[in-house]
Amino acid sequence: MIKEWKDVTMTISENMMVYKNKEEKKTKIITRANHIDNGHHESSIFMDLHAGTHIDMPLHMIDGGEDSTNFDFVAVNGLCIVVDFSGEVRAEVDEQFLSQFEIKKGDIVIIKTKNSYSETFDLNYDYLDASGAMYLKNLGVKAVGIDALGIERSAPGHPTHKTLLGNGIYIIEGLELSKIESGRYEFICIPMKISGVEGLPARAFLK
Amino acid sequence: MIKEWKDVTMTISENMMVYKNKEEKKTKIITRANHIDNGHHESSIFMDLHAGTHIDMPLHMIDGGEDSTNFDFVAVNGLCIVVDFSGEVRAEVDEQFLSQFEIKKGDIVIIKTKNSYSETFDLNYDYLDASGAMYLKNLGVKAVGIDALGIERSAPGHPTHKTLLGNGIYIIEGLELSKIESGRYEFICIPMKISGVEGLPARAFLK
Repeated sequence: MIKEWKDVTMTISENMMVYKNKEEKKTKIITRANHIDNGHHESSIFMDLHAGTHIDMPLHMIDGGEDSTNFDFVAVNGLCIVVDFSGEVRAEVDEQFLSQFEIKKGDIVIIKTKNSYSETFDLNYDYLDASGAMYLKNLGVKAVGIDALGIERSAPGHPTHKTLLGNGIYIIEGLELSKIESGRYEFICIPMKISGVEGLPARAFLK
Repeated sequence: MIKEWKDVTMTISENMMVYKNKEEKKTKIITRANHIDNGHHESSIFMDLHAGTHIDMPLHMIDGGEDSTNFDFVAVNGLCIVVDFSGEVRAEVDEQFLSQFEIKKGDIVIIKTKNSYSETFDLNYDYLDASGAMYLKNLGVKAVGIDALGIERSAPGHPTHKTLLGNGIYIIEGLELSKIESGRYEFICIPMKISGVEGLPARAFLK
């Protein structure tokens, strides 16, 4: 039943944290009509397509990569394993850390880190490093999710993004995993149906 | 399986139809970074919260009504009946039409009309009239969906919206039902998780 799904989506609002607190990435709600003046209430939203919980399309980091037009979100739905990095002092989720878990070919790997406990944007956020991305690619995982707004951190050439997106492994960023324990789940990820873009805001659940 | 769900969501793009073709309701994709200049591709979206497939919160039409902050989308998920009005010449879905069907208490009623076959906005769109809304309210339905961008059409005082939203019956507008036959289904409707607003863009499915 849908009411038993655990929601792992960030809430979208004007106050939500955005990547590096950049002004151009802040969400705006624009009220265009209200009850006093118009007899009804109506608003628009302006938001970065990488704000909150979202899926990166290959185009985001690969020149000529696919955009969202033909994206089949079955690619980000299925059996998953949540691995818990939140007890680690260091910030880089690497091959050594990931190799402790029984990750299977075809799994969606969801990485829980200290980020899920931060209400503001931490410039020193936990991230998946190049060795971890290569390890997951070699295992043949289906998709990778993390509770960071960026899956890597200021890495020249974006090797983590490119290793994953270049091999058909979609990335889900901005998950909210504070209430989730490690273990095996089903991951349900329903993106907005926007054509022609490089990022899709999404609602995500574990069950 | 998720891949067998029938998607009944409108695609969001700059070219999508919007209510009454109003300029302020048109979707804009703003590209903020591209591969040639920045080494990656990044964009933002500006959209009316009532563009495409979306759920109306009570605040949309009721002064002091609830906004999306505490919305539990279980209210728009569950057993449903699709009724097909698309063969009718007239535009108003009324009590007389609806009374032909075996609509049950607690059903989500999805109204398919000629709107699903129109690629451009038709000012004379099919809509649910006040008698139809009252009939569904009296039956005790759970929610009402339609393939119009507005569930009523230029009705003074918005009786259809108020009869439904004022009685805890949420409204889903902008469904895309061209490939759907009448009958009983399960309706799955996953909105964006935005707080404090009167409309929630959503992805919707029948299975």
